[in-house]
Amino acid sequence: MKATMLYGPRDVRFEERPDPTIVRPTDAIIRVSAACVCGSDLWPYRGAQPLSGPTPMGHEYCGIVEDVGREVRTVMRGQFVVGSFATSDNTCPHCRHGYHSSCVQREFMSEAQAPLLRVPLADGTLVATDEVPSDDLLSSLLTTSDVLGTGWFAADAAHVTPGATVAVVGDGAVGLLGVLSAKQMGAERIIAMSRHATRQALAREFGATDIVSERGDEGVARIKELTKGVGADAVLECVGTQESMMQAIRATRPGGGAGFVGVPHGVALDGEPLFFSHVRLHGGPAPVRRYLPHLIDLVLKGTIEPGKVFDLTLPLDQVAEGYRAMDERRAIKALLRP
Amino acid sequence: MKATMLYGPRDVRFEERPDPTIVRPTDAIIRVSAACVCGSDLWPYRGAQPLSGPTPMGHEYCGIVEDVGREVRTVMRGQFVVGSFATSDNTCPHCRHGYHSSCVQREFMSEAQAPLLRVPLADGTLVATDEVPSDDLLSSLLTTSDVLGTGWFAADAAHVTPGATVAVVGDGAVGLLGVLSAKQMGAERIIAMSRHATRQALAREFGATDIVSERGDEGVARIKELTKGVGADAVLECVGTQESMMQAIRATRPGGGAGFVGVPHGVALDGEPLFFSHVRLHGGPAPVRRYLPHLIDLVLKGTIEPGKVFDLTLPLDQVAEGYRAMDERRAIKALLRP
Repeated sequence: MKATMLYGPRDVRFEERPDPTIVRPTDAIIRVSAACVCGSDLWPYRGAQPLSGPTPMGHEYCGIVEDVGREVRTVMRGQFVVGSFATSDNTCPHCRHGYHSSCVQREFMSEAQAPLLRVPLADGTLVATDEVPSDDLLSSLLTTSDVLGTGWFAADAAHVTPGATVAVVGDGAVGLLGVLSAKQMGAERIIAMSRHATRQALAREFGATDIVSERGDEGVARIKELTKGVGADAVLECVGTQESMMQAIRATRPGGGAGFVGVPHGVALDGEPLFFSHVRLHGGPAPVRRYLPHLIDLVLKGTIEPGKVFDLTLPLDQVAEGYRAMDERRAIKALLRP
Repeated sequence: MKATMLYGPRDVRFEERPDPTIVRPTDAIIRVSAACVCGSDLWPYRGAQPLSGPTPMGHEYCGIVEDVGREVRTVMRGQFVVGSFATSDNTCPHCRHGYHSSCVQREFMSEAQAPLLRVPLADGTLVATDEVPSDDLLSSLLTTSDVLGTGWFAADAAHVTPGATVAVVGDGAVGLLGVLSAKQMGAERIIAMSRHATRQALAREFGATDIVSERGDEGVARIKELTKGVGADAVLECVGTQESMMQAIRATRPGGGAGFVGVPHGVALDGEPLFFSHVRLHGGPAPVRRYLPHLIDLVLKGTIEPGKVFDLTLPLDQVAEGYRAMDERRAIKALLRP
């Protein structure tokens, strides 16, 4: 097969790779229906995260089960499945507490921008639908694999509750789906922080009631102004930089929650201001597997349409253009069809 | 009157000071029945926190109302009251959310190691008992003003729930009362981290089921060992150093809570390991006022006896010896009687 490899900064190649095979009896092989480029793929693409050598890419996926190892019990050939970007056995203590992305057997997926994919711990990682869904649901189902699950976790980790005032830092696909998640959780007011007209429009479509285009100190001041000096009940940090993290913490009211899902790059938190902020801080790699059944259900019922974050669809062999378009912010998120 | 002043590192003086008077109509003056030395008083005492000049000391107090300003409605002359170390109006948005120690009108008390004390925002800061309690309850009632309320907040912020496995970092009075708090909240297993025989004994009396004397990496390894590799559901950080903070975070299981109440001194948290730890972090100055009615009730009913943390009682004029004894760890906590 031909699949995606990153050789170095801005050097994405679509090249011949061996077909994946069952390595362990708990593996499944799936034929990928759709994959995509993640905001977190841009860190190594931009050289902000070093590579040890040519690296296969992609960790968001859905598709049809092609083969399963002899110990796989809950998914079978021909089924449509979505899986988390982090594998999980769904039985260890961390999984039982709902933190599948800290599973003792966790591996991070990284070969999904390809036509065929090996998924370890298939029983604990994949969720199958009753029927193969129609093609128009594919993009929304794909989002449950990471980007929606991550926005959802940001809202959950920030303790969004019915009636809450929520602020979302970051207008990438995760931030936009954080808006959608907060809306689903009953937030009354959702302030999206964004400077880009198309993203602002999508944020409003997903449920944002206010847009703040200021950043840093001015951004925090605007949130304070909009909340009568109190701060937001819950803030979703969906970027991962020092500035965005501080913006999130400072925009949260005392006792409110800051959910952080942007992988921190160069972030350091000073203990004393964090202490006096009284903010509840929770985040990490989203335990997508916990949310998958619910999120798939919301998509199949037509309650939500998270696939709208894909504003670019490319055949998989043009994956390099997908990276370029996202890097240059010409696209919010690129869907790849093998 | 004569009251306590800190002039510089290890220079505590008991000297003539003007009697406090009603300054604002919301003030009360109380005749202090008992005050004490706080672990946090040791930071400036040891020179770890600079002073801008001679500083009046003390923020834990209970006593009899001597006088009230003309706008005070809920406390009156002759009543026995306990107040928080942080003043609060009990009406602002932060107070209504239960974060009284972030009240928009907050002031930190700092003149309580004295026979007479002015308490600003008396209605929102003080809680009166129905009757003047008997003298044997005084030490336990005094703890509700800060040290017990702070241990309680540590347990609450760490999400201690019935059946939980809890670890407590720090065997000062706050940590010991964190043990007591976790026990009251229904924790099944409470691991106290302590190297001192007398403190270990008190921890056991308060409900600790296990003692870990190791610190740092070894301490974390022991907690992991005692929890079958999982980590504790909730960890109470009651010290405030980089080592204790990292010990707390690393001893918590993914999705578990770390409640931090030790005022951070030189603590910096690296974003990336915090992200991957999946720990829920919450702390700050304890919103004691929220807990006061419940904690006073538990003391008056005889359900808890937190006053046992006082292993040294001194007349107020010997306050300097109280600081010395705590600094040298000869005493867990020193009670001062004017």
